[in-house]
Amino acid sequence: MSIVIAVETSDVRFPTSRELDGSDAMNPDPDYSAAYLRIVTDSGDGLEGHGFVFTIGRGNDVETAAIKALTPYVLGRNAEELLADMGATWKELAHDSQLRWLGPEKGVMHMAIGAVINALWDLKAKRAGLPLWQLLGQMTPEELVDLVDFRYLTDALTRDEALQILHAAEPGRAQRTATLLAEGYPGYTTTPGWLGYSDEKLTRLAHEAVSAGFKQIKLKVGADLQDDIRRLRAARAAVGPEILIAVDANQRWDVAEAIEWMGHLAEFGIAWIEEPTSPDDILGHAAIARAVAPIPVATGEHVQNRVVFKQMLQADALQVLQIDASRVAGVNENVAILLLAAKFGVRVCPHAGGVGLCEAVQHLSMFDFVAVSGTKEGRMIEFVDHLHEHFVTPIDVHDGCYFPPTTPGGGSEMHTASIAEFTFPDGGFWLADAQTRQVQDVEVAV
Amino acid sequence: MSIVIAVETSDVRFPTSRELDGSDAMNPDPDYSAAYLRIVTDSGDGLEGHGFVFTIGRGNDVETAAIKALTPYVLGRNAEELLADMGATWKELAHDSQLRWLGPEKGVMHMAIGAVINALWDLKAKRAGLPLWQLLGQMTPEELVDLVDFRYLTDALTRDEALQILHAAEPGRAQRTATLLAEGYPGYTTTPGWLGYSDEKLTRLAHEAVSAGFKQIKLKVGADLQDDIRRLRAARAAVGPEILIAVDANQRWDVAEAIEWMGHLAEFGIAWIEEPTSPDDILGHAAIARAVAPIPVATGEHVQNRVVFKQMLQADALQVLQIDASRVAGVNENVAILLLAAKFGVRVCPHAGGVGLCEAVQHLSMFDFVAVSGTKEGRMIEFVDHLHEHFVTPIDVHDGCYFPPTTPGGGSEMHTASIAEFTFPDGGFWLADAQTRQVQDVEVAV
Repeated sequence: MSIVIAVETSDVRFPTSRELDGSDAMNPDPDYSAAYLRIVTDSGDGLEGHGFVFTIGRGNDVETAAIKALTPYVLGRNAEELLADMGATWKELAHDSQLRWLGPEKGVMHMAIGAVINALWDLKAKRAGLPLWQLLGQMTPEELVDLVDFRYLTDALTRDEALQILHAAEPGRAQRTATLLAEGYPGYTTTPGWLGYSDEKLTRLAHEAVSAGFKQIKLKVGADLQDDIRRLRAARAAVGPEILIAVDANQRWDVAEAIEWMGHLAEFGIAWIEEPTSPDDILGHAAIARAVAPIPVATGEHVQNRVVFKQMLQADALQVLQIDASRVAGVNENVAILLLAAKFGVRVCPHAGGVGLCEAVQHLSMFDFVAVSGTKEGRMIEFVDHLHEHFVTPIDVHDGCYFPPTTPGGGSEMHTASIAEFTFPDGGFWLADAQTRQVQDVEVAV
Repeated sequence: MSIVIAVETSDVRFPTSRELDGSDAMNPDPDYSAAYLRIVTDSGDGLEGHGFVFTIGRGNDVETAAIKALTPYVLGRNAEELLADMGATWKELAHDSQLRWLGPEKGVMHMAIGAVINALWDLKAKRAGLPLWQLLGQMTPEELVDLVDFRYLTDALTRDEALQILHAAEPGRAQRTATLLAEGYPGYTTTPGWLGYSDEKLTRLAHEAVSAGFKQIKLKVGADLQDDIRRLRAARAAVGPEILIAVDANQRWDVAEAIEWMGHLAEFGIAWIEEPTSPDDILGHAAIARAVAPIPVATGEHVQNRVVFKQMLQADALQVLQIDASRVAGVNENVAILLLAAKFGVRVCPHAGGVGLCEAVQHLSMFDFVAVSGTKEGRMIEFVDHLHEHFVTPIDVHDGCYFPPTTPGGGSEMHTASIAEFTFPDGGFWLADAQTRQVQDVEVAV
């Protein structure tokens, strides 16, 4: 038996806004950040659970406070008990009768639960000596459905239907695991397409993306129509007719505006339109999807929980479902969402980028291929070449594919030195930065 | 010109769980709490802006941290500028490009924005020497639509349509103000109906409600069907056939379960079924509404923002819209929601109770009667007889009606002594409580 003896949170922020990496129509100046969590036990095996919520700067302190508020659920507890029944552990956190009021099941508090749950999965996978995708991919259908809270889902997916999906995928698990290790899982890249980049940089990066083996790139759109047309023309010229180009409006439009705007972009051959409007607007997405068909609508990085995804599927509001490793309440809820997508026959193309999102979410797509949907058809994981060096197990992307991690864990562990350097406001980087600013202020004043 | 010189937050908690006041199928043990905010300027007039987010205990610290994170938007700013264009102030807060990631527009961060916005409205009303309902009710239609962010609403309500609604209601404003002051605004009471109460207490309180002039009571349901049937029978026997009885499941059911359960309760004459399932489930509410008609479906206290309300109305998912003073981003967003309800011809019956929710939300219903819908038909404000003594301007409810406050402000100011006594964990009450528990622990140990 081992006891959780430390639950440590850190407010980690990277100064990405200075390079306009990650700039889009709604997020002009993100500082990619992580509200970070480390769970330590007295087991003596040196294994720890790490998890985080990705944010884009201000408010990372609030998210860190929310994770800290969950400490009593973990600290001093029997680790084996917490890890043995992750379905029960999830419910205990998500159904806290008082904390629930702050959502329910959405926003700051729900994402904080996700960080705790993901940290526990990281620890569980390390103890099993397996990467998370493989740990999940070896669980029985019964064990997997026990992870899922079916409350509010049963009008679209029952426990029995979920079991049927998982049983149907069981026979091919070993073969698909071998395929995955040999071929990897397709990725696509958003690196060329940030709004803040010049056309020259876009063109250069689009060429590089094709050379690197990617079959799809993605461009941010939605700030200015003429700019979008010019940038899409440049991108199409750079990549040729075969490479897919998706576009992403980051929630910029109302329904009618989305439909009209996409009418002007359709000629460039659009692989999907991502986040055309509010992530809360199920009926709005459905109206847009009907109007812009056959262009598929993609969304999910800001979809708050499984209940909204359920409705998006019921209403045929999305044709590409984009899970995110840190938006919902962790691995358990993402398993529920993968099962919903499988039930409705919708492809899953995860949102990634940010800090550690690629490292974490790849496990879910790979698990989905091995044990849920059983297919990679039309599916790919977003790739952005940012900040991977800060992770203990950085992604291995080459030839346009993610290659499966073989290191035990869930991928969310950051290097201790990176945490120390970028903790806000007292880490080495931010202290030095504050000093530089003071010097500059003095120089300006002089 | 005056400057905001202090923004003070407090984590205020009342130990309501000890009496089972406020107990329902999802919230068995709430400690009614307020993440509280006080805004002070250097104007020298002694007027302050007060606002809060209502929570039910744990997590009130996280909500308080979220409000504190908004301090830079207020502290050191020119108060006249902030108050002069409340529409611009709202957008500045709600559209912060980094904080937005924590929602967008939902949960902890969105409610925190509501506290700041409501505190500013409280100050603005005090400076105008008017209760908030009257300040709003004297603004021109143009000024009122300028408060509203129409982003994501235009497929259901445009600025021009909103203006039309407000212009149509303009002629009768003075007469309806006089009516309101003379007759009050109808209330209904939830006091008899908490799940934790015995049948005897329920019956006694139901009798008292009728004697007090209420035309509707509400019962919590959803934990156990046989209990619900027995309690409804007792309530109906107590109040007779004329008084309306609404029921509230507090999100307890899935769609099919809600429909089946309500089939068993219909015989008691149900005025509405409130929160039958997840507040995020627009399509689920619509399915339930179709199945249980003519019983109306009511929801809103946990509806996160105007985008979800819009869809609830588009889908005919609710027939009674329940605004809440502290769930969305303050007065501005509630004005948007009142306009949406008016557009769709749906009645608004606010959620109240908690801490200060009655004091705050009455202003919105009264404003709606004076300047938006122009009617009280089928409308009433929830009344719970809890914790009003802690407010500087407690509600005035008699003869089953809320009588309009005439004191300047938005109603959200708590007595300084109450804040001091119930601040957690260092206020007088909680310190004494901790000492008592220590003594009890020692006695048990002995």
